[in-house]
Amino acid sequence: MPNYQAPLRDLRFVMDEMLDYPGHYGRLRNGDDASPDIVTAILEEGARFAREVLLPLNQVGDCEGCLLEGGEVKTPQGFKQAYAQYVEGGWPSLAAEPEHGGQGLPPSLGMALSEMICASNLAWGMYPGLSHGAADALRHHGSDDLKATYLSKLVEGVWTGTMCLTEPHCGSDLGLIKTRAVPTEEGAYRITGTKIFISAGEHDLAENIIHLVLAKLPDAPEGSRGISLFVVPKYLPDAQGNPGERNGVVCGSLEHKMGIHGNSTCVMNFDDARGFLVGQPNKGLACMFTMMNVARIGVGIQGLGLMEASFQNSLAYARDRLQMRALSGPKAIDKPADPIIVHPDVRRMLLTQKALSEGGRMLVMYAAQLVDVVELREDDAEKKRAEALLGLLTPIVKAFLTELGFEATNEGVQIFGGHGFIQEWGMEQFVRDARITRLYEGTTGIQALDLLGRKVLMDQGETLKLFTKEIHKFCQAETDNASLKEFIEPLARLNAELGELTMAVGMKAMSDREEVGAASVDYLLYAGYVTLAYLWARAARTALTAMESASDSTEYYRAKLETARFYYQRLLPRTRAHAEAMRAGAESLMTMDVDAFGLGFEM
Amino acid sequence: MPNYQAPLRDLRFVMDEMLDYPGHYGRLRNGDDASPDIVTAILEEGARFAREVLLPLNQVGDCEGCLLEGGEVKTPQGFKQAYAQYVEGGWPSLAAEPEHGGQGLPPSLGMALSEMICASNLAWGMYPGLSHGAADALRHHGSDDLKATYLSKLVEGVWTGTMCLTEPHCGSDLGLIKTRAVPTEEGAYRITGTKIFISAGEHDLAENIIHLVLAKLPDAPEGSRGISLFVVPKYLPDAQGNPGERNGVVCGSLEHKMGIHGNSTCVMNFDDARGFLVGQPNKGLACMFTMMNVARIGVGIQGLGLMEASFQNSLAYARDRLQMRALSGPKAIDKPADPIIVHPDVRRMLLTQKALSEGGRMLVMYAAQLVDVVELREDDAEKKRAEALLGLLTPIVKAFLTELGFEATNEGVQIFGGHGFIQEWGMEQFVRDARITRLYEGTTGIQALDLLGRKVLMDQGETLKLFTKEIHKFCQAETDNASLKEFIEPLARLNAELGELTMAVGMKAMSDREEVGAASVDYLLYAGYVTLAYLWARAARTALTAMESASDSTEYYRAKLETARFYYQRLLPRTRAHAEAMRAGAESLMTMDVDAFGLGFEM
Repeated sequence: MPNYQAPLRDLRFVMDEMLDYPGHYGRLRNGDDASPDIVTAILEEGARFAREVLLPLNQVGDCEGCLLEGGEVKTPQGFKQAYAQYVEGGWPSLAAEPEHGGQGLPPSLGMALSEMICASNLAWGMYPGLSHGAADALRHHGSDDLKATYLSKLVEGVWTGTMCLTEPHCGSDLGLIKTRAVPTEEGAYRITGTKIFISAGEHDLAENIIHLVLAKLPDAPEGSRGISLFVVPKYLPDAQGNPGERNGVVCGSLEHKMGIHGNSTCVMNFDDARGFLVGQPNKGLACMFTMMNVARIGVGIQGLGLMEASFQNSLAYARDRLQMRALSGPKAIDKPADPIIVHPDVRRMLLTQKALSEGGRMLVMYAAQLVDVVELREDDAEKKRAEALLGLLTPIVKAFLTELGFEATNEGVQIFGGHGFIQEWGMEQFVRDARITRLYEGTTGIQALDLLGRKVLMDQGETLKLFTKEIHKFCQAETDNASLKEFIEPLARLNAELGELTMAVGMKAMSDREEVGAASVDYLLYAGYVTLAYLWARAARTALTAMESASDSTEYYRAKLETARFYYQRLLPRTRAHAEAMRAGAESLMTMDVDAFGLGFEM
Repeated sequence: MPNYQAPLRDLRFVMDEMLDYPGHYGRLRNGDDASPDIVTAILEEGARFAREVLLPLNQVGDCEGCLLEGGEVKTPQGFKQAYAQYVEGGWPSLAAEPEHGGQGLPPSLGMALSEMICASNLAWGMYPGLSHGAADALRHHGSDDLKATYLSKLVEGVWTGTMCLTEPHCGSDLGLIKTRAVPTEEGAYRITGTKIFISAGEHDLAENIIHLVLAKLPDAPEGSRGISLFVVPKYLPDAQGNPGERNGVVCGSLEHKMGIHGNSTCVMNFDDARGFLVGQPNKGLACMFTMMNVARIGVGIQGLGLMEASFQNSLAYARDRLQMRALSGPKAIDKPADPIIVHPDVRRMLLTQKALSEGGRMLVMYAAQLVDVVELREDDAEKKRAEALLGLLTPIVKAFLTELGFEATNEGVQIFGGHGFIQEWGMEQFVRDARITRLYEGTTGIQALDLLGRKVLMDQGETLKLFTKEIHKFCQAETDNASLKEFIEPLARLNAELGELTMAVGMKAMSDREEVGAASVDYLLYAGYVTLAYLWARAARTALTAMESASDSTEYYRAKLETARFYYQRLLPRTRAHAEAMRAGAESLMTMDVDAFGLGFEM
């Protein structure tokens, strides 16, 4: 069975040493609650919960999967008990607002915990994970009545939430949905339709399930401007607010999936189900994006968690497995062969995992600070800036960390050799579980269009400049720092190139809008590598400073510096490929006739 | 259920128009047997068999898997009947030598068929596939007695073969094997030990299974110089050559794997099993490489088959699935949305699959010509050259096509969006099946060391020069061809750079042998992209010539040219990343202390 320990040392490096979280918390509303002692206690307790409660259930969940019987879903053995412990421990309410029963701690703390949960048991983590988005949508857009009825239960965790968007014929293009909402005389709605791919749509962990459902009103305009959002509970709350009458929403079937077997992926049938409007009629898409953006960051964290889990197990195996001698001569002379960690290519794979995982953690905690600021700072200018930056970074966090999460978990399988393909070792489960993260909450292609089309080009690159200026300033401040030169020089060059590439694709897009789609995924990956380069350079600076002033052990910092170097020398060169591919433009993609694609095999 | 049609049009382009297979066959011993009519009949009949017999069993095999009961393995429903049809049709003996009951057709034809088999049902294809390597080892190294007893049965297909190399503690490093062979008085051996990951080690398709087993003699030298190869049949042949006494080799258990569920991956326990020496004592490794090289090319073909299968289904889905409007304005005005093939990023993914699959086919059929020459040409100089080139290309065919096969099958999942993650559609099975191809018969890392260490640097780049010279000549001959300029210029540049990179790593390796391992995988991928660029340039030339002279439809050729352009503009830029990573050298990989890797999470 795979092992996992939450990377607390590394997390503290990022939070305390690199990103000054103590100072950051001090500037937040109620930030004093997140005192160093509290933060330490929460992270350590979370690490223990992940390791002791969730990790042992990860392979169980994969093997058993979920079972649908008579409309009820039975989750894998132990999942229900673990969820009860989770609620008991007060975890769901950690970062929720006190007025809804939350503990009012900063969202960033919840995000740090989320990595641990995803790393130890992704399929389980999705049950509570989905509730956050549902709660956020209600909090921002729900009436006081809806909040009173549903929010505290979601926050407490005794009820869970879902997002019901996709239908059989539409996923990315929600303008096409067919689910209908007919107003009733009492001001409620009757919802009818079929939703698919509903994660945690039905399960036995909580006493009620609150579906956030996109549907169309009878008089709704065509397309995405005619979508409304509704709350549809599994059980309609009675007068005391407890689960009452069963509503007309049932799980029709469970999907058989490549991975995340422990999570129920449901077809949900709504048959005249009672629903309640959230926000304004026909403005459901905006409400949905509230959920979606929270969820997207969450999926990026899933990618991060899986990378780390795979890395830790790969490292243990590489130190243990004896196979061949080092090319430069035997290292473990008393053994029949050297541990495979002596081989440069095994190190290349391990360092790839390590650099992406540690870099991914920096990115998540950097974005988490922005989330904190948006939620909990009083300063409007700061808030606005954070909102813009977070909007820019959200598709990068989501798509970049899941694309690389898939790569890193695959390196894990590769390090294990043939054993990596065998279920027992658990390495291939990380790959199968990671595969969904590139797809749900908007595929990588959708994220890339969001980044380049909406976030970057729509405001003529203004938001992007917020970010590239921050990098520029950092580089300028360190120009005379000889020991950082190996990082600052390439970073400054790439940061400038990011601006040039943006300008170039923007110009081309003015005459041909297909240029945006043609460049988008390469653009997102390019931007992702530059973002991580910026954070790795900051990490290197922090490590160097610590090494200079440290009186005791400097091994951790030296390793950090060496990993930064590896990232710059061996991973950052990928920007060359993405830049060149982007510059090639849309033509080679768009000229081929649709009927010509299959001429090699069609009869 | 996924669909599949053998890409006969494309195969004929590669064979007849691009690589002059008719002329090539004319120069082979008995090459006249491979007349155009025969070739056509075989390819068409093979395509039919793949589509009608094997394809319908592919998902069945994945869902059912294999069952071990009382030491016997039951393969999935239909597998046995399909194999009987395969034997009945004479397929196993197609490319085998007439003196062993074969039909004496060129190996390349068998390789073309192999792609179809792998594309339609990889797990099934591995049962007959493993026999080829076993037969080859016997043919080259077996005594006349062994050949008489085993070879014709393997060729006929009524018996199948295995390769028993890996043991629990060693895979890549076979010098560590513990299986022992003790000579008996009658000149045979008693084999005792445990082998793992034995594909088709036990099954119900054939009446006997012939294991080719690596073991150590009592007085064997340490390491890989003390390995011998043995034949160990499941049933010892009786005086009439029919399966007689049961031998002491049994399947102890089946592995639970990520993919290829329909193939039995066995733990094989040898307990005083009767075995017969193949070749000289302690020279087993050389014999094994005979099997291994055949098998490696075979695995490359598996990568190719899966790419093509995934591509065909992705294309159908992309033409069918309606989602959003083209950025440049609606294309399917009468429909609620446009088919997703209008979107540039979907086209990027489809063209990636197409360019890699068609390019992979060129590479396989280029290598297949070399196999033909090695086996069936009389001219010694030609033979020697082909042998050298084939040795160079074998690790590229194996590792490059499987790495890209994994990428291309993943693009297939991505094109399907969330549906790609659902088992029913079959797209995720291609990914799971493809995952093993990067591992077995030597991981990508092992192939890369073989390429750079053994094939390229060991003879000071002489063999590599054979290949780069061929590319150089091609470029020179086309320098004045204006319509090929877009291909020839970058190709010539990359071909020269390949030489420079080789020289650079060779020089560095003289002072530090770790430089070889540090550069190896990037080197292999770089070389792979250049090799495919060469073949795509040749394809472009062929297509251009055909378009100039064609009186009828030129659509196929135009698509070929457009795909070549896509390959050059959007995929070939990846060489930039690999070149830069390689140039960075070993330092950033080797400096980190083994104990420092885990400092971020270890307590």
